[in-house]
Amino acid sequence: MPSEVHMPKKVVIVGGGFAGLKAARALGNNEDVSVTLIDRRNYHLFQPLLYQVATAGLSPAEISGPIRGILSKYKNVSVFLDNLENVDLTNKKIQVQDRSLEYDYLILACGAKHSYFAHPEWEENAPGLKTLEQATEIRRRLLMAFERAEKETDPEKQKQQLTFVIVGAGPTGVELAGTIGEISRHTLTKDFRHIDPSRTRVILIEAGPRILAAFHPDLSRKAAADLEDLGVQIWTNTRVTDVKSDSVVLGDEVIKAATILWAAGVQPSSINKTLGVPLDRAGRVIIEKDLSLKEHPEVFVLGDQACYLTDKGQALPGLASVAMQQGTHAANQILREIEGKPRLEFKYLDKGQMATIGRRKAIAQISNLKFSGFFAWILWLFIHVYYLIGFKNKVFVIWQWAYAYFTFKRGARLIVDKEWRSKPKPPVS
Amino acid sequence: MPSEVHMPKKVVIVGGGFAGLKAARALGNNEDVSVTLIDRRNYHLFQPLLYQVATAGLSPAEISGPIRGILSKYKNVSVFLDNLENVDLTNKKIQVQDRSLEYDYLILACGAKHSYFAHPEWEENAPGLKTLEQATEIRRRLLMAFERAEKETDPEKQKQQLTFVIVGAGPTGVELAGTIGEISRHTLTKDFRHIDPSRTRVILIEAGPRILAAFHPDLSRKAAADLEDLGVQIWTNTRVTDVKSDSVVLGDEVIKAATILWAAGVQPSSINKTLGVPLDRAGRVIIEKDLSLKEHPEVFVLGDQACYLTDKGQALPGLASVAMQQGTHAANQILREIEGKPRLEFKYLDKGQMATIGRRKAIAQISNLKFSGFFAWILWLFIHVYYLIGFKNKVFVIWQWAYAYFTFKRGARLIVDKEWRSKPKPPVS
Repeated sequence: MPSEVHMPKKVVIVGGGFAGLKAARALGNNEDVSVTLIDRRNYHLFQPLLYQVATAGLSPAEISGPIRGILSKYKNVSVFLDNLENVDLTNKKIQVQDRSLEYDYLILACGAKHSYFAHPEWEENAPGLKTLEQATEIRRRLLMAFERAEKETDPEKQKQQLTFVIVGAGPTGVELAGTIGEISRHTLTKDFRHIDPSRTRVILIEAGPRILAAFHPDLSRKAAADLEDLGVQIWTNTRVTDVKSDSVVLGDEVIKAATILWAAGVQPSSINKTLGVPLDRAGRVIIEKDLSLKEHPEVFVLGDQACYLTDKGQALPGLASVAMQQGTHAANQILREIEGKPRLEFKYLDKGQMATIGRRKAIAQISNLKFSGFFAWILWLFIHVYYLIGFKNKVFVIWQWAYAYFTFKRGARLIVDKEWRSKPKPPVS
Repeated sequence: MPSEVHMPKKVVIVGGGFAGLKAARALGNNEDVSVTLIDRRNYHLFQPLLYQVATAGLSPAEISGPIRGILSKYKNVSVFLDNLENVDLTNKKIQVQDRSLEYDYLILACGAKHSYFAHPEWEENAPGLKTLEQATEIRRRLLMAFERAEKETDPEKQKQQLTFVIVGAGPTGVELAGTIGEISRHTLTKDFRHIDPSRTRVILIEAGPRILAAFHPDLSRKAAADLEDLGVQIWTNTRVTDVKSDSVVLGDEVIKAATILWAAGVQPSSINKTLGVPLDRAGRVIIEKDLSLKEHPEVFVLGDQACYLTDKGQALPGLASVAMQQGTHAANQILREIEGKPRLEFKYLDKGQMATIGRRKAIAQISNLKFSGFFAWILWLFIHVYYLIGFKNKVFVIWQWAYAYFTFKRGARLIVDKEWRSKPKPPVS
C-alpha cells in the first residue's frame, strides 16, 4: 500500500494567451496536477493576425478558438470564464468575481494592453489594436470612412475622410498602414464610383528616428521603401501632442483625418501594481531565471506581463514565441519539483521576428539572418499559419489569403453596429 | 443623328436584401437606366442562415457579402450607405440623411423586423433574430449561460442557467430550438467539467395549435417528433403574457430561464405608414398585379414589405424566393416600359419552403411534394448553399458544415463584448 494518499497539486493559470495555453497543455492529463485556467474571455486570440481582422481580411472566429475546446481533451484541466480581481501571495489564493481559488502553484500570464502615455482620453479618437472588439471597431471606422467619402461632394471633406493616420511604427502600425494603403489603391477603384483615389493618404507617424526599431536598420529601410511603394507616407521623429476626433496634432502642425489608429506603446496588466513585487520601468514584473517570483517560487509570471532579463541584461521582447516557450518552461518546472528534481533556468531559443508590408512583402530577422521581400512574406505566411492553433482555422486562413491574394477582395467587410436592439424609428417628416 | 439625347432613367432601389439585389442585377449594365441602391447596411445578409450565427456555427462574414462588392461589375449602379427617411411620392424623390434623391422609378424593398405585439419592453429580455447584431447578442447569451452554469454550485440556479426558452415555432424558432438542443447534448459533455447535462432544458413555446403552421400538418408532426428526439419540449396553445429578465410568464405559470429568445411575429418597415397607401392588417403595402402602387405605377414595393394577393386571394409568404422573383420582375417591367412594351403580371413560381431540425433532419414542402428526415436535410443544405451569394462564401459554408457535422464542434464560439474601449481597472482590494 502507498505510504500516503495521492493528492494532485492545484495549479491555477490566469490567462489563455500563448503562455497560459502552452502551460495548460504541458500539464494536461498529468495526474500529479489538477489545473484550473481562468480567462475573462472564452477564446484564445491569435494576436499576430489581429490587424487582418481590423482591415477586413479575416473574421474574428478565424483567428481565435474557444479555450475550452482547445483544452477539451485534458481531463484534469477546468476552464472558467472569470476576471482576476486580487492575488493573495501570502495565503496562496486568488480572488475572482464571487469566489476565491486556492493554489499550490500559480501561473500569471495576463498579457498587456495599450498605453496612451497618460492620455487615456485619446482612446475614443484613436482606438488601439489588442482585442477583437477593438479590431471590429477599427474595421467599422475604416469602412465607414470610405462610405462617407463616396457620398461627399466637397473635395476637401472627401480628402479628410480618405486620410488615415497610424500612430506608432512597430509591427502592428506598419501592418495596418501597409494594408490600408493597399485597400485604398485596389479596392477603391473597383467598388466605388465617386471617390477620387488621388485624395487618399495613409500617414504613419513614429516618434523615434526609424520604423520597426526592433529590427536591423537595413530591414527598417527596406520596409520603409516597400511601404512608400504602397503610398504610405512615413513621418519619423514626430511626436503626437494631441489626438482630436477629426485631427492629429503634432506640435504646431495639424493633420485633418477622419480615421486615427493607435499602435504606440503597451502596458502590462494592472494586477502587477498590486502584487508588491519589483517591477521594471514599463511596469512588468521582474522574474527570476526560472520565471518565478523571488520571494514566492510557487508563482510564475510569464509573457508580456513579465520582464525576463537575459544574461546580457536585456529584457526579452513581447513576442508570441517568448510567451509560448515560457509557458512550457514554467509547467515543466512545476512537474520537476513534484518529482523531486531541481528547477532549471529558462533559456530563450530565438525564433526571430517578422512583420508584413501589404500583401506580398515582409521582413524577417532570425538571429543574424535577415530576409525581406516576397520570400520573407512566404516565410511569414507559413510560420503564422503553422502556429494558428487548431487545424480548421489553418485551412480557413490559407483559403482566405489565397482568395484575397488573387482577387484583391477582402472577405469580411462588415460594418457591424455596437447596438443590437431595434433602432428607434427614423424621423419621418 | 438620333432625334433626342439619350438620358438613362433614374432608378432608385431602397434595400439590399434579396429583392433589391435581384432588381439591381437585372438592371445592371443596361444603358437605359442609371441605378442607385441605398441600404443602411453595407452588406447583404443571407437571413435564412442567421440562426447559424446565433448558435455559433457560422461567422457573420460567412453569411453576408458587401453590397458594393456584389454589384461592383455593374458600372451603372452606385451604392450608398444611407437611411431612408421619407418618400415623396408626388414629387418623385426620397429623402435620406442629409440630401434627397430624385427618381423616375422607385423600388422599395426595405424588409421587415421583429414585432413584440405592443410589448417593445420585452426586447431587452428576449432578443429577436433579424440582424447580425442580434445574432451575435444571442450567441453571447447562449455561450454565457453555459459558462455561468459551469461555475454554478447551486443545482437550482444551474438548472435556470441551462433553461432556454424560444417563443414562436416558425422556421426560425424551430431551427434555434433544434440547434440549442443539439449543442447542449453534445458540446456540453465534452467541453465542460461541472455541468450536469440532465439539468438542460430547451422549451419551444407556440401560441397556435401546432409548430411550423405554414407547412402541411404531416410535416409539422414529423418535425415535432424530431425536435423531441433532440430533447426539445414543445408547448403549443401557450400564450406568453410577460417576459422578464429571468423568466417567462404564461398566464399563471412561470418558467425560470436565463436565456429567452424571440421568434414570434414580424412587422414590415415603418416607412409603410408614411406612404398614404392601402396597407393590409400586418401593415404591409398592398400592391398591384405588376407589383407597383395603384396610384403610382412608377413605384414598386417588394418582399416582406409588401402584400401580394394571389388569384386565390392569399398573400404570398415572406420567403427569399418570393423576394428574389419579385426583384427580377419589377426590374424587367421597368425595362419593358422604357422599350415601350406593356407591363406583365407577376406570377410566383412556388419554390417551396423548408426548415431544419438539428444537424441531420429537415422538412421540405414544394407544391404537393413533402420531404422529411435526412434526405430533406441534404436538399435543404444544397439549396441554401447554392443561393448563398458569392462563390467564396459557398465553399466556406460547406466546409464549416462538414467540419461541424463530423466533429460536433462549432467554429464561431466567441463571446464578444459590446464595448470596445478599455475596461475600467478591476476593483483590487
